[in-house]
Amino acid sequence: MRMYDIIQKKRDGRELSTEEINFFINGYTKGEIPDYQISALLMAIYLKKMNKRETVDLTNAMVNSGETVDLSLIEGIKVDKHSTGGVGDKVTLALGPMVAACGLPFAKMSGRGLGHTGGTLDKLESIKGLKTGFTKEEFIAIVNRVKLCICSQTANITPADKKLYALRDVTATVDNISLIASSVMSKKLASGSNAIVLDVKVGSGAFMKDLESAFTLAKEMVDIGTSVDRNTVAIISNMDEPLGRAVGNSIEVKEAIETLKGNGPEDFVELCITLGSFLLVLGKKANNIETARDMLTEVINNGRAYNKLLDFVEAQGGDVNYIKNTDLLPKTSNILELLSDSEGYIKSIDAEEVGKCALALGAGRETKESNIDLAAGIVLNKKVDDRVNKGDVLAYLHFNDNRKFEEVRLQLRNAIKIGNKNSEHKKMIFGIVDASGIKKL
Amino acid sequence: MRMYDIIQKKRDGRELSTEEINFFINGYTKGEIPDYQISALLMAIYLKKMNKRETVDLTNAMVNSGETVDLSLIEGIKVDKHSTGGVGDKVTLALGPMVAACGLPFAKMSGRGLGHTGGTLDKLESIKGLKTGFTKEEFIAIVNRVKLCICSQTANITPADKKLYALRDVTATVDNISLIASSVMSKKLASGSNAIVLDVKVGSGAFMKDLESAFTLAKEMVDIGTSVDRNTVAIISNMDEPLGRAVGNSIEVKEAIETLKGNGPEDFVELCITLGSFLLVLGKKANNIETARDMLTEVINNGRAYNKLLDFVEAQGGDVNYIKNTDLLPKTSNILELLSDSEGYIKSIDAEEVGKCALALGAGRETKESNIDLAAGIVLNKKVDDRVNKGDVLAYLHFNDNRKFEEVRLQLRNAIKIGNKNSEHKKMIFGIVDASGIKKL
Repeated sequence: MRMYDIIQKKRDGRELSTEEINFFINGYTKGEIPDYQISALLMAIYLKKMNKRETVDLTNAMVNSGETVDLSLIEGIKVDKHSTGGVGDKVTLALGPMVAACGLPFAKMSGRGLGHTGGTLDKLESIKGLKTGFTKEEFIAIVNRVKLCICSQTANITPADKKLYALRDVTATVDNISLIASSVMSKKLASGSNAIVLDVKVGSGAFMKDLESAFTLAKEMVDIGTSVDRNTVAIISNMDEPLGRAVGNSIEVKEAIETLKGNGPEDFVELCITLGSFLLVLGKKANNIETARDMLTEVINNGRAYNKLLDFVEAQGGDVNYIKNTDLLPKTSNILELLSDSEGYIKSIDAEEVGKCALALGAGRETKESNIDLAAGIVLNKKVDDRVNKGDVLAYLHFNDNRKFEEVRLQLRNAIKIGNKNSEHKKMIFGIVDASGIKKL
Repeated sequence: MRMYDIIQKKRDGRELSTEEINFFINGYTKGEIPDYQISALLMAIYLKKMNKRETVDLTNAMVNSGETVDLSLIEGIKVDKHSTGGVGDKVTLALGPMVAACGLPFAKMSGRGLGHTGGTLDKLESIKGLKTGFTKEEFIAIVNRVKLCICSQTANITPADKKLYALRDVTATVDNISLIASSVMSKKLASGSNAIVLDVKVGSGAFMKDLESAFTLAKEMVDIGTSVDRNTVAIISNMDEPLGRAVGNSIEVKEAIETLKGNGPEDFVELCITLGSFLLVLGKKANNIETARDMLTEVINNGRAYNKLLDFVEAQGGDVNYIKNTDLLPKTSNILELLSDSEGYIKSIDAEEVGKCALALGAGRETKESNIDLAAGIVLNKKVDDRVNKGDVLAYLHFNDNRKFEEVRLQLRNAIKIGNKNSEHKKMIFGIVDASGIKKL
């Protein structure tokens, strides 16, 4: 078998065999096939596509390229949740305590982000003392005791995906359905959960800019999960405006805490309850979605979700005072207001632009080596459909570095459109995809 | 300017600007842009194409990536000839002496082949003592004295093309019209000739497998030449069966010598006279094609072309006895016959397969490091449209290495189809392309 022939075959739009896919993934993982041949193949895959069978094979090849995690010592059904990524996505921080409070084990391995803000692990570092590095045994013990643990990935899972992703990132071959689906699903399948809930985001702040491609990606990932007997459900959620109000790290932690105390932003609460309800049903803690939603609302109202957060922080060595008194969380030296210069209704808030503003204020990493300013970011005071008067605060900019303020303020102002009332009320959830098919809402 | 954005733009089927093309060619030549980004771009160019303007810009960028050759010290108009490559293509060996005998300077820089047989320089090494390494001054002096010199490329012309070609060769991005046209034309433009005659081959043994793509490639190259004021003509010639009878190195030299003595195979003579007639017209040694054809026929018949070959060999330090007595040329220990097992007419001889057989017998290089067996190869005894009886010799296999014989014999037999008489007589020349347009014959 020759790499050249594999490139040529895909270039000509033909289907790659299982053996050919295994050949290039194995060869690339071992360093036997050079980057320049793989990047040519990636561009051919990007432009000529892969079919379902090829995508499943690619996923399996990447799973087999490294270790897989054995979670069998955790009691009960393990359900994993994954988001395709968006702006202001602090879901794990609130959802984990919510479902754990309902008795479902939430054993999450997370990463550090290379995006507009840090990843879940970065955000958690806002809480003094909180550790995320555990051995497998410690991780399992915490989950069995508290039902909730969020730790950094230690096992060498899907090394092929890591190499491929790094190459896609510099060769403009990231946003292809098959490549995204196999990348996400290989990591999920290698992580050892029994069932998977996917949060597929669509809109200006997401990979998928339109509903059609979001549903296609969701279907592709659900099909991959189903093909290897993992119960998989995907929720298509709105990422046209940032999720909730906070975009940053410590300010997102604060928003998650408020959410667990019953004071969360409407859109964020709705998404957490929707995702959580599918987690509970797949994890057999509820018989149907309605019951599951009631359970999740209940654990917020009766304080058990909030208490679960305290247990979790304590179990991972964090200082629970940072939760009880959020003023202790990292803060910036400056918090400046962006005021409205016109009146009307918020028509749209470009999530990607808000993300870029947060990044410019220091909330994210531009390169792997960058340091994150845990306190920096943006808190929206108005959301889409809100009424606005002249002089109203549209958003608060949290930052330590004064030099960038004027530039970012202008960019943020341009990201927020004010005009007549939108004719339709915004939607948070656009649909559900599972093994039985696509349900649009 | 970022390489990522250039890849993305072409991936999305958009036109690259002159600045963007210069950016990636300069960056790649200097080693500032890595192979893996260029190979992704090449695949995007392959699949999304370049338009005429982009192709001209790419050609110019590659010309400007290195040195250009100054031939102004050679007297008269310098016309260069280039073939897109085929099986049994010994044109330069016969054409050079023919046009030089008509008074046209033929100053040719040639290469070593990485193909079924060696390149022109390899073939010339069959002649004892013949040198091809000259300084620019020696080269020009020989051309001014003999009107003919064939030497190896010493100047660092089109380094960008060299790097790009090596990368295309291993990433299945060779046979794209814009990439082929810019590669060929950049070398021709950097080589300092005033006018260019292109031999664009079409058929099983050529890059271009069908007439339509051959005419498209020819038009593209003529347009590039015209855009920089070089008079450029392309001949579309048949490469369905090997050119002439010999496919190898010393056996091709022998066939070229026979041709200059008036005993050449019909198809090869026709191609040499056609190409030569355009060279003479562009070089203003003849007023029209008919006159030029007569001149070329004349120099073969009166021995002046053959004598020019002797002068050339002597001028380059070769032993003219090897020309006068071709038995001195390298010979193999074995010459075995392939006999016909059926009767009828030769319907087709797959040029590419014959080339592969010659390569398997040792006539070419599989990798840059391989050694060529100058004596090995195949001599066809029958050509397309010839009558064949059972037991007739179809071809002679010249080889030193016994082990491969049976395998190659079978492959060669399968490459030759015998059946009923073809309804149409084969054509050597399919058409002419020049600045005024396409003329199909």
